Amino acid sequence: MITKANIKYIQSLQHKKYRDENNTFFAEGIKVVQELLSSNIFECEAIYCTNEGYELLSKTIVNTYSNKINIIEDFELQKISALVTANCILAIFQKKYTDSSINIANKLTLVLDDIQDPGNLGTIIRTADWFGIKTIFCSEFTADCYSPKVVQSTMASLGRVNIVYGNIREQLKKNEHIKKYAAVLGGKDIRTYKKIEEGFVVIGNESKGISKNIVDMCEEKISIERVGEAESLNAGVACAIILFAII
Amino acid sequence: MITKANIKYIQSLQHKKYRDENNTFFAEGIKVVQELLSSNIFECEAIYCTNEGYELLSKTIVNTYSNKINIIEDFELQKISALVTANCILAIFQKKYTDSSINIANKLTLVLDDIQDPGNLGTIIRTADWFGIKTIFCSEFTADCYSPKVVQSTMASLGRVNIVYGNIREQLKKNEHIKKYAAVLGGKDIRTYKKIEEGFVVIGNESKGISKNIVDMCEEKISIERVGEAESLNAGVACAIILFAII
Repeated sequence: MITKANIKYIQSLQHKKYRDENNTFFAEGIKVVQELLSSNIFECEAIYCTNEGYELLSKTIVNTYSNKINIIEDFELQKISALVTANCILAIFQKKYTDSSINIANKLTLVLDDIQDPGNLGTIIRTADWFGIKTIFCSEFTADCYSPKVVQSTMASLGRVNIVYGNIREQLKKNEHIKKYAAVLGGKDIRTYKKIEEGFVVIGNESKGISKNIVDMCEEKISIERVGEAESLNAGVACAIILFAII
Repeated sequence: MITKANIKYIQSLQHKKYRDENNTFFAEGIKVVQELLSSNIFECEAIYCTNEGYELLSKTIVNTYSNKINIIEDFELQKISALVTANCILAIFQKKYTDSSINIANKLTLVLDDIQDPGNLGTIIRTADWFGIKTIFCSEFTADCYSPKVVQSTMASLGRVNIVYGNIREQLKKNEHIKKYAAVLGGKDIRTYKKIEEGFVVIGNESKGISKNIVDMCEEKISIERVGEAESLNAGVACAIILFAII
């Protein structure tokens, strides 16, 4: 059983406005939910699952979260799900406090200038976590990292990377002594670089690239050499190749 | 104006069965449509656009395809669109004949074992085209490369890469003399390889990885070294990094 008020509350969390107001978000599907619960990064508010979902949960998780688990019917889960076909479990978590004054010296930091596709943002966060990146600065118009589609594609990486939204121009200005690398078409071949220990790697919007005023702030323009004919690379792919090349 | 019969026909092309029956598919949005039209790879059957879409078409395209362009109303375009919000233009193309006996000697060839997410497949095709890969063998359960979501994310790369569906086990068997590299977790670090001139690179399903019987056929198991903590990389990202590393 789930109350009407709770259905309304969870549905509202599909919108950024309400995620911000409540400081919560939700995740769906056994893989993502179980990984988020096991990682202990986000405080869990409630778990809603069908009998099928309940069976798939590990014993440790059932024991730890017994007072938060609500077994509901398939049609009830579908009502609160953001998926076309609900996937046996949904859990609500509290957002994490992000520290905008985090220390980025001697580290590689990603800067996203208006990445708008939630799938791309999710992939970038997961890739950043794979390569040990600790901080991502996102421009105000970058997709919200707590939107259901982003959560779905980041897995638990969402909690391990410090994701800070704000004016990226000011962030770069504040850290003038740290070298800035702009991913552009027609820049210097990324293969000519060796390991980069410290710097900002700036990735631009899927169709417009990096804003001119941000490119102008970057000392280095970097590119992935094209061998074939595609006009461009997907933003998540370009980001991944660049990180692989310089880490 | 668009006839009811044409609306029904285009809507049917959202399903693989009807794309196969008619040997056609459709693309949407000015960027993809214009790129597909300019590339001359697929024969265009018809173009439907709003006044707004028409204004965005280049003069050359308007001249070349004048007898195929139909200007329609927004609400008509929405009816035939696969997008939540239709994007000013939709064009129908004939599928391309794919040659399953294509020569793969002295080349790198991608093998996809049940890649199911259309976005991932689209990204992989586009990345393959960027790196000059000419052929992709797809298992029968890999997403259909002509599905609207794949077309959307490949751009015109769709026509430049030879995409062959079928039994990948038999394809690998038939080419026993060509080395096979399986992308797995815990394999040999991809950085230890130099340029690879000839071979099959096998990428597995998003959650299950490569089927055991396929992995067993591969002489080399390759991996991308993890520095951070993410459990895995997105399939499209892994594929891109591997291609970058060995091309």
